[in-house]
Amino acid sequence: MLNFDYSIPTKIFFGQDQIQKLADQISQYGSRILLVYGGGSIKKIGLYDKAVAFLTENNLPFWELSGVDPNPRIETVRTGIDLCRKHQIDFVLAIGGGSTIDCAKVIAAGFYYEADPWDLMIGKAQIEKALPIGTILTLAATGSEMDPIAVISNPHANQKIGMGHPAMAPKFSILDPTYTYTVPKHHTAAGTADIMSHVLESYFSNQRSAYLQSRMAEAILKTCIKYGPLAMEEPENYEARANLMWASSLAINGLLSYGKERKWSCHPIEHELSAYYDITHGVGLAIITPHWMSYVLDDSTVEVFKDYGVNVWGLNPQEDAYTVARKAVAKTKAFFVSLGLPTTLRAVNIDDENLGLMANAATKHGPLGEFRPISAQDVLQILKSAL
Amino acid sequence: MLNFDYSIPTKIFFGQDQIQKLADQISQYGSRILLVYGGGSIKKIGLYDKAVAFLTENNLPFWELSGVDPNPRIETVRTGIDLCRKHQIDFVLAIGGGSTIDCAKVIAAGFYYEADPWDLMIGKAQIEKALPIGTILTLAATGSEMDPIAVISNPHANQKIGMGHPAMAPKFSILDPTYTYTVPKHHTAAGTADIMSHVLESYFSNQRSAYLQSRMAEAILKTCIKYGPLAMEEPENYEARANLMWASSLAINGLLSYGKERKWSCHPIEHELSAYYDITHGVGLAIITPHWMSYVLDDSTVEVFKDYGVNVWGLNPQEDAYTVARKAVAKTKAFFVSLGLPTTLRAVNIDDENLGLMANAATKHGPLGEFRPISAQDVLQILKSAL
Repeated sequence: MLNFDYSIPTKIFFGQDQIQKLADQISQYGSRILLVYGGGSIKKIGLYDKAVAFLTENNLPFWELSGVDPNPRIETVRTGIDLCRKHQIDFVLAIGGGSTIDCAKVIAAGFYYEADPWDLMIGKAQIEKALPIGTILTLAATGSEMDPIAVISNPHANQKIGMGHPAMAPKFSILDPTYTYTVPKHHTAAGTADIMSHVLESYFSNQRSAYLQSRMAEAILKTCIKYGPLAMEEPENYEARANLMWASSLAINGLLSYGKERKWSCHPIEHELSAYYDITHGVGLAIITPHWMSYVLDDSTVEVFKDYGVNVWGLNPQEDAYTVARKAVAKTKAFFVSLGLPTTLRAVNIDDENLGLMANAATKHGPLGEFRPISAQDVLQILKSAL
Repeated sequence: MLNFDYSIPTKIFFGQDQIQKLADQISQYGSRILLVYGGGSIKKIGLYDKAVAFLTENNLPFWELSGVDPNPRIETVRTGIDLCRKHQIDFVLAIGGGSTIDCAKVIAAGFYYEADPWDLMIGKAQIEKALPIGTILTLAATGSEMDPIAVISNPHANQKIGMGHPAMAPKFSILDPTYTYTVPKHHTAAGTADIMSHVLESYFSNQRSAYLQSRMAEAILKTCIKYGPLAMEEPENYEARANLMWASSLAINGLLSYGKERKWSCHPIEHELSAYYDITHGVGLAIITPHWMSYVLDDSTVEVFKDYGVNVWGLNPQEDAYTVARKAVAKTKAFFVSLGLPTTLRAVNIDDENLGLMANAATKHGPLGEFRPISAQDVLQILKSAL
């Protein structure tokens, strides 16, 4: 187990009607609020009205940034920063899924940086502080509600970049599973794949001595496998939505990766797919993951795949490691298929035109992963196998 | 899953040589330190000298409270509070296991309470704030390093009481597994039993909808089962000591109990054993737990026992639930035996003299547990079966 510094300071208010704590929480940090959200879904489910009512009742003036896109764009971040400066905002409240929260995070950090906020994404400038952030989550997927990371796209440059800083960790997040009752099947599926991918990125690691972390990873995977399909069949099943929601936060808040190296494989590949083709993140992950698994399965990795097959998929530990491993990969793919997710790039209208470009872009900082490091050439092979 | 408010603010510095961060961390909170520790073990392993060197180099004056007993006593707390007042202490540093840390917590809280600190334990007065606390852990067992709870004994009243307040959560804890290399076999065994008991108290719950929490509980149990014996065989096995140490913190920091009711069964019973007979906490738990399991196994609880048998002990899911359940209880008992722990009260010199008194004391606030609530009469039966 590697050394680690654990700090997960975000407070979580989990469960039905926890929004009642909104005004009290905000008041601990600020008094002039930027409300960040996406399309109209939070209005349809009455969440917008509820939040606004709590703010108004408690004399908390707010300004709005709406229309944050999936794969949120740097332009939207710039608009948000302008709003914060114009209205002397001192607290950013994101209501939505990961895209909205990520956008809010970079607005909060960019507020204190005088030049263009894209500089913070590409590492040209460093974050020093950020406005305090709170979130009300409406989609179980990215885990952004409990981590300090943001992913922002710059469509002009075909770039989608992830970046983290402790100051961007939300002060609090309100996780009410009922706010995800109206999430459509397709997004429930993609969110489930996203959660699982976060877990798998930590799980498939050479740090096998971080045994506890790997067993906890299996706990979250089993939760996704049980409740992903159930939430699709019964959108208002509280137990299913609650377990998925809490799984989304725990999958990526550090709990599973502390003690391991944090070098991911499938996410950097998928970021290129989204950057070039603006596809749904979880869908891209569901396509890439089984192909990546098959590609990296070898003598050095097979035992971890066997653990995965036995402990997550209930496969027979008496069988040969490769047999279990291949069955586990097949089970993974079949699970995504059962959720109605595509398994090929062509299914999401990606052809072979930009595969080389994307493979190079994904590996421009070096090989991906520490489990079985993959080069641009490897990524290209994986993308080709996924066509 | 029940609603919950999650807050685990303690920072953890985990791994070898993390003590290097000690002075920097303390300096964020205070400058005049009370050093709290137990017997001489921290001197034997050189930890005392190391800590003192870091304090001295960084001009952090300190005063000492040594000799904190296992099952720490309220008298020691009183002495510590006097020292804090006399020397204008503004930070309490505990170096040791759960007893030392618990003692430090109540010193830190009692500092702000003008009358006798026992009032805080029995609920006669409420904690309002506490001096900031840091810890350097030397025993994987109680989890006190990452929770806001303290257990203090009052031998004159045959009382051992647990109490919690957010202000008593350590600001930081340094978890260096090498500091547990010299923990004797017997205490490694008792610590493992203590960790497992914390997990089991949350695991055996009627909140089966908190699926994710139960699967994570199984992850920690498997970790204890794998590494408890290994740490006893190979005291300097870093992987074993590291996994046990991190398991001790995660078992009771809230992660497993959020979303469930927090009504425990075996701990309140064991607290009476320790209060009357001053036995080692983990030993008492190892004795009581299998007897409690057998006693509460019935139609309403058997399915959870089956999950436990299948997921933790690898028993056959095709077998009848009661068969699996009984085997799981037997496996639990056999595991404690394999660690060299006693299985009967007589083995720790407890006879039938005070069983009734202890059963009444354990239930004086009402029946224990929510999984299968047990009355004084039930506790008496369990104690008798454990004789």
